[in-house]
Amino acid sequence: MINVGIVGYGNLGKGVLKALSKASDMNLVGVFTKREPSSLGLKEVNVYGVDSLKDMKGQIDVLFLCGGSATDLPETTAIYLKDFNTVDSFDTHAKIPEYFEKLDKIAKENGTVSAISIGWDPGVFSIARMLFGAILPDGDDYTFWGKGVSQGHSNAIRKIAGVKNAIQYTVPIQDALDKVRSGVRPNLTTGDKHLRECFVAVEEGADKTLIEQQIKTMPNYFADYTTIVNFVSNEEVVKMQQKLNHGGFVLRSGSTSSENKDLLELSLNLDSNPEFTASVLVAYGRAVSKLSKEGKSGAFTVFDIPLKYLSDKPEEFLRKTLL
Amino acid sequence: MINVGIVGYGNLGKGVLKALSKASDMNLVGVFTKREPSSLGLKEVNVYGVDSLKDMKGQIDVLFLCGGSATDLPETTAIYLKDFNTVDSFDTHAKIPEYFEKLDKIAKENGTVSAISIGWDPGVFSIARMLFGAILPDGDDYTFWGKGVSQGHSNAIRKIAGVKNAIQYTVPIQDALDKVRSGVRPNLTTGDKHLRECFVAVEEGADKTLIEQQIKTMPNYFADYTTIVNFVSNEEVVKMQQKLNHGGFVLRSGSTSSENKDLLELSLNLDSNPEFTASVLVAYGRAVSKLSKEGKSGAFTVFDIPLKYLSDKPEEFLRKTLL
Repeated sequence: MINVGIVGYGNLGKGVLKALSKASDMNLVGVFTKREPSSLGLKEVNVYGVDSLKDMKGQIDVLFLCGGSATDLPETTAIYLKDFNTVDSFDTHAKIPEYFEKLDKIAKENGTVSAISIGWDPGVFSIARMLFGAILPDGDDYTFWGKGVSQGHSNAIRKIAGVKNAIQYTVPIQDALDKVRSGVRPNLTTGDKHLRECFVAVEEGADKTLIEQQIKTMPNYFADYTTIVNFVSNEEVVKMQQKLNHGGFVLRSGSTSSENKDLLELSLNLDSNPEFTASVLVAYGRAVSKLSKEGKSGAFTVFDIPLKYLSDKPEEFLRKTLL
Repeated sequence: MINVGIVGYGNLGKGVLKALSKASDMNLVGVFTKREPSSLGLKEVNVYGVDSLKDMKGQIDVLFLCGGSATDLPETTAIYLKDFNTVDSFDTHAKIPEYFEKLDKIAKENGTVSAISIGWDPGVFSIARMLFGAILPDGDDYTFWGKGVSQGHSNAIRKIAGVKNAIQYTVPIQDALDKVRSGVRPNLTTGDKHLRECFVAVEEGADKTLIEQQIKTMPNYFADYTTIVNFVSNEEVVKMQQKLNHGGFVLRSGSTSSENKDLLELSLNLDSNPEFTASVLVAYGRAVSKLSKEGKSGAFTVFDIPLKYLSDKPEEFLRKTLL
């Protein structure tokens, strides 16, 4: 059995707990939280304060770090990694190189293994981009996200004066997707590929026209996109916030010769973004445990780990049934 | 530069030659053929008889073995592997386990590396089945092939008395694909997922009704499928035989919890089956060269090789641009 711990009990941590119920080779030692342990209301699972981890070195093979990428993971992963193997979903794309270098050094110094940036993007989508590009060098990549909620864009709207609550969906533009699938290899910006649909609840007496204008002209977030603003009740926004579906498409359009074209496409349609991300974390947790048992150390991404490490089945079985 | 050789100059070998023109890190030492070298009509490429390989140990880093899976590869790979690293597209699924075991032993004894069963199925499709299954353990796999030519089924028709020429297309059944995409997880046989469309040219005076009946009732090949037989001229069959398009879909439909479903899908739409297979061979040839330089030996499948090995780009660049 692989002994594992969950650090953080937000949506992602809850997803890992569910995913572990489908992993018969893993034993949950406990959930570790910054909050008062009893406040999580968990039964049949040990809940500890994060400080307890100090005394549990050697008792946990893999820690699933379920904090956020903005402030939590950059600070805490480096600390946990001194004593434990870790898996995280760090997804600030621009900062991945420095995050990797830092953790690789710490992991090698401490003989631990850290799988970073695991999930669906970065993660499963990265695998598709890597594989597709290597086998079809003469081609172009297209990644479409959605339909799904962007927390960053939702937060940006909520900061506008007069806005009570808001949710923003990133929506792939079907015409752009069809154009890529036709094989013409168009040049498309992120704004050409996606529209942004916002559902906004305002305070009483707020100026909707002004708010709509502030959203649509917001630099970086909305100015370069087709943006649709719908004003709805707070109840409607709250109801939408319960749904966590997401997904998207990675396409590569290219040629093997002057006569022959190819279209390679991966698509994900996910009812729950955090639960699916958690399922990917758990599979890579298994890989981390195997790498560690082989004596490996350092930081690893989805590019570095052979796929057989993700499975709980023997190699012979995988060759016989899946190859 | 990675020095490579192509063994066999049928459609697959021709595809490798084209793929190498897009691989700036590879140098083609020569094409090796069982035929009279000059009969290949190749200019600006060295062509040798296969016997010349005996004297070229140490001059070639990777041999692309472009023979067939029925009789050629099972006999010859073991011989070449004693002196060279190899990549092949062995695709007789039922015999892969024994093929792997045999080559793994020879490669380890001789300090060589053999990447086996490389292409799109087995190959890219296997990667999807492996990855999808590991991250979504509660789910079902569905592989659809086509639309594309099945050589085995085309040959089976050509053996019927009175048949002059024939081509058979394997066609995914759209209703079955839609049903899987709806998330209901149906039980589907290969025959539920595909229909078989045949274009047959007959000898003068042949009994078309009898031939159609013989095709439709042929055990293993057609009896369990919806089969459509079209009688056409030999010229039409020959014209169809020039087109080598293929592709298909790998889907996994599953759940991360009782509330949430997911649909993961990989699709390939290929103008040229052999050229695309060749492109995959070339990427894995790069991996074989790297594994060999690291001192590894043995047989490897797509499950065993980290994806970064397929690329000619540095790891830092891959993390920065593709993760």
